[in-house]
Amino acid sequence: MKLVIGDKNYSSWSMRPWVLMTHFGLPFEEVLIELDQPGTKDAILAFSSSGKVPCLVTDEAVAVWDSLAIAETLAERFPQHAMWPRDANVRAQARSVSAEMHSGFGELRTHMPMAIRTIKPGAGATPGALADVARIDALWCACLDASGGPFLFGEFSIADAMFAPVVMRFNSYQPPLSAQAAAYAQRVTALPAVAAWIDAARRETHRIGHDELDDSAA
Amino acid sequence: MKLVIGDKNYSSWSMRPWVLMTHFGLPFEEVLIELDQPGTKDAILAFSSSGKVPCLVTDEAVAVWDSLAIAETLAERFPQHAMWPRDANVRAQARSVSAEMHSGFGELRTHMPMAIRTIKPGAGATPGALADVARIDALWCACLDASGGPFLFGEFSIADAMFAPVVMRFNSYQPPLSAQAAAYAQRVTALPAVAAWIDAARRETHRIGHDELDDSAA
Repeated sequence: MKLVIGDKNYSSWSMRPWVLMTHFGLPFEEVLIELDQPGTKDAILAFSSSGKVPCLVTDEAVAVWDSLAIAETLAERFPQHAMWPRDANVRAQARSVSAEMHSGFGELRTHMPMAIRTIKPGAGATPGALADVARIDALWCACLDASGGPFLFGEFSIADAMFAPVVMRFNSYQPPLSAQAAAYAQRVTALPAVAAWIDAARRETHRIGHDELDDSAA
Repeated sequence: MKLVIGDKNYSSWSMRPWVLMTHFGLPFEEVLIELDQPGTKDAILAFSSSGKVPCLVTDEAVAVWDSLAIAETLAERFPQHAMWPRDANVRAQARSVSAEMHSGFGELRTHMPMAIRTIKPGAGATPGALADVARIDALWCACLDASGGPFLFGEFSIADAMFAPVVMRFNSYQPPLSAQAAAYAQRVTALPAVAAWIDAARRETHRIGHDELDDSAA
């Protein structure tokens, strides 16, 4: 399998399947396309008609795009791994929080863009972004209370991979979090697959607009 | 099962699971909560901590929210129905286009809000919205070419349910479409489950801001 991704510093959507596949030890070839370059669009279109990363190219040469579609496809193809929780009711909950993350939290995305090398406590703290942070905090706590942790539904699952980029945003902008949510964010940050992604992001030298955006953020 | 939805005229996210469940003949009790009213938020929170519709309450009293999480959960619980295509590679494609719809097309959503009773040809045709329309048109045609139709992946599936609200937007604002895409939109509109939703939307009397929004749209 090939996984087509963007810059590790910036590409929040790419981070999800990369962390998921790395954590579960699935073999894949990484194809990294730097974002916001003159040739970026054409380079991505060579893999995915959506023009967006991430894109998984399966061994049957089928292009699967979008982080959640990739996750569902992998969960189905590698049933030996509990990518989703094994219990059907818990799995339905995990899909709910993953889908809420997938389609929502627009204010957070806009005002606290993922830029792993950036550390700007307090930046991007608009009322809308803080409302998103509060909802995520409550959601995490409800999941952790129900499962007992250490991850949202016990062991690390797709739901945690879906929120890993949010953890990166929280590390950068450090909005107020409950102690329980902050501890969860630390556990996600310390997960070997996440740490490997962060380490690679730090070693990247390519900079794009997001950094400037962050520099001018409130 | 209970399906909690918003106004049929406006609630594009609610339309997806309602049409899906109705088309496949799944028995459910409909709970309709009018949107944008003083008590709306509390009424929805009684079912879903997300504060959003749709929400499926299963027979085990598990709340599953978000249209895509509901669809995946139903597909898993009712394997006798081909809610997703039966072929694994085709299913991966269907999940890709469904997820692209789920997280994307923000310009279309903003400028061509679903309001089934509204007919305003040409309204909302911003460059961004038209770019979304063009991508959807191309995506539909690619799927129909590959499957042979009549729906995106042959028989009606979750992917079609995900795009049904887009068909409603196209019916209202009538952006330029290829003949193939327009014919597909007509087939979706004529599907009995979709026609039943439209018919109910027309009989609703509750109006909210969207109508005014449309009235002032370019």
